[in-house]
Amino acid sequence: MLIQELTRHASVDLLARTRLGRLACAQGTQPYVVPFYFVFNKRYLYSFSTVGQKINWMRTNPLVCVEAEEVVSTHEWVSVIVFGRYQELPDTPKWQTAREHAHQMLRQYPMWWEPGYVKTITHGKERPLVPVFYRISIGQITGHRATPLSRWRQGMS
Amino acid sequence: MLIQELTRHASVDLLARTRLGRLACAQGTQPYVVPFYFVFNKRYLYSFSTVGQKINWMRTNPLVCVEAEEVVSTHEWVSVIVFGRYQELPDTPKWQTAREHAHQMLRQYPMWWEPGYVKTITHGKERPLVPVFYRISIGQITGHRATPLSRWRQGMS
Repeated sequence: MLIQELTRHASVDLLARTRLGRLACAQGTQPYVVPFYFVFNKRYLYSFSTVGQKINWMRTNPLVCVEAEEVVSTHEWVSVIVFGRYQELPDTPKWQTAREHAHQMLRQYPMWWEPGYVKTITHGKERPLVPVFYRISIGQITGHRATPLSRWRQGMS
Repeated sequence: MLIQELTRHASVDLLARTRLGRLACAQGTQPYVVPFYFVFNKRYLYSFSTVGQKINWMRTNPLVCVEAEEVVSTHEWVSVIVFGRYQELPDTPKWQTAREHAHQMLRQYPMWWEPGYVKTITHGKERPLVPVFYRISIGQITGHRATPLSRWRQGMS
């Protein structure tokens, strides 16, 4: 297996065609990672969630890391890592344009569902359904591709 | 879509049948998340890697978070989150038994390959291939399952 860096262009391409990623945040020295759906557009990853541990932690410390991947096998995969910053898009005049843009982005894909359609039961109780719209402002992007050595050698010949 | 908590038993079952997960660590306030292969056994997730950012960060701050998932669609998925602690298994007499156990665990699965077989090229240079064996000591485990509401209602009737 050969692991090589992706170009920025190839990394951005993967973000543009992927919806499912994992979002890592941290409180103090404790990291936390959860799966999330997102839509990439220009310098941002758009998403939404109900209020919970992830949103609370990102409100306190907006530094995040996002991972997205395409896995064929243990020897053949592409993975992209984004270092970024959490930005909430509240329902206020200041954020209205960005929030509407987020709605537009998210509505285009089947991952979209009316947030009120989700019913979360935690510790036997329903969780309040307050949808939070947010975006991750993209800082550094890095990507890697693993190729089976046999195929890599064929490519060289 | 209905999101419900998994029992501990169901969460552990997912860890036991999954190999691919994502490992989050943090340095200062910056989280970092990467895909990784692991094998669950009792109180630990076993894995190995070459030395790089992830290993360096976990050596400094051993608090980690691991996510594993099975996704059918945006409305039907299972996800498990583990809070744990990084423990390196160095090639020293003190750690020999644990290290051999890690080898045994990892060798059972197709994800295993001789670490020397991996060739990593970063910034045009090959990275030194020093395999690091480690385990994540499992602390808290939580899991969630999303079910389409239509199916959930069928199950209730």
